[in-house]
Amino acid sequence: MELLEAFKWRYATKKFDPNKKVEQEHVDKIVEAAWVAPTSSGLQPFEVFVVSNQELKNKLVPISYGQEIVADCSHVLVFAAWDSYTAERIDGIYSQITKEREQPSDRYQAYTDRLKSNYLNRPAEVNFAHAARQAYIAFGFAIAQAAVLKVDATPMEGFVGEEVDKLLNLTEKGLKSVTLLPIGYRDEANDWLVNQKKVRHPKEKFVTEIA
Amino acid sequence: MELLEAFKWRYATKKFDPNKKVEQEHVDKIVEAAWVAPTSSGLQPFEVFVVSNQELKNKLVPISYGQEIVADCSHVLVFAAWDSYTAERIDGIYSQITKEREQPSDRYQAYTDRLKSNYLNRPAEVNFAHAARQAYIAFGFAIAQAAVLKVDATPMEGFVGEEVDKLLNLTEKGLKSVTLLPIGYRDEANDWLVNQKKVRHPKEKFVTEIA
Repeated sequence: MELLEAFKWRYATKKFDPNKKVEQEHVDKIVEAAWVAPTSSGLQPFEVFVVSNQELKNKLVPISYGQEIVADCSHVLVFAAWDSYTAERIDGIYSQITKEREQPSDRYQAYTDRLKSNYLNRPAEVNFAHAARQAYIAFGFAIAQAAVLKVDATPMEGFVGEEVDKLLNLTEKGLKSVTLLPIGYRDEANDWLVNQKKVRHPKEKFVTEIA
Repeated sequence: MELLEAFKWRYATKKFDPNKKVEQEHVDKIVEAAWVAPTSSGLQPFEVFVVSNQELKNKLVPISYGQEIVADCSHVLVFAAWDSYTAERIDGIYSQITKEREQPSDRYQAYTDRLKSNYLNRPAEVNFAHAARQAYIAFGFAIAQAAVLKVDATPMEGFVGEEVDKLLNLTEKGLKSVTLLPIGYRDEANDWLVNQKKVRHPKEKFVTEIA
């Protein structure tokens, strides 16, 4: 399917069929799309938790303002960003980069020095906000991949971050939840949104060409 | 091309061929991908400016820390988010939604009331930060669409937001620049990054499955 067609096919599913599970191969592709997404300076400052455990999905409902989709869906992908940048985290990925590219270990030294002088003196919440934005690009990639596979997905910000962090022990990993992505298959008969027209701002208001 | 293949093909192009322009049809598709992207509560709180004017692209260089890619590329897409949420903006899109869906004008009244009570008492910068995150999903969609079309694109945060806002008169439109996306075609002979291995955190560190 053409990507644009897939983008128009997708919608924020409001009712999943609890009996339909997403095949592991599809789950893997959706996660892989998030994994290869670009991030600022290549730091990739987030992780993805894939929750298919029913008990855990049920526990997400009350901390997602009662939204049953997190229980009825097949898997919930939790995007969790670094709570801050640290020297270890910056050095960690760049040490991996130089190894995999077979470069001298100081190849990016000047660059990482600059990153550290920019990031390490900022409040943790500024760094987290920046890391969270990177997770949103990957979130977009995952939504795109799901759409191409005709897997339904519901981008979600409506949950209590602190409670999700507690449930998944994110704090001790230095992470904070950013978004949820329940995936599965729509319950077409019971989803009020499924046949509603997709509405966006008029394109001439959305885009301005300066040629 | 398979989406995942396209994601692996793409990279943050560091040197564009200034003589190769992206066809209008491709530009339109990339913008359309951003246009159909999902946003929180469907507010679509951002706009896209497509700059192909060479003089304007040249002016972006000094306010992008001297990065020549914004001049050498074919078009620069500027993603600019609402500086805040307002009652007018919330009512604007929901009035359009009820019209296009041929629903009673108060169909989403309770919902928009809740949005207003959540958003209108928050500082503008909190609302902008939230709007900016939505733009990142669309940014991801645009990058995905470019990759599928084999159009090179460089996700960029390295620019002086206030200066870009001034250059494009964004402030008076109630917008603030969030990201840039130069698109075009790589200058393969002169791009140091083109043949470098794409490096990400080990997948077992990136993804945790809870079954």
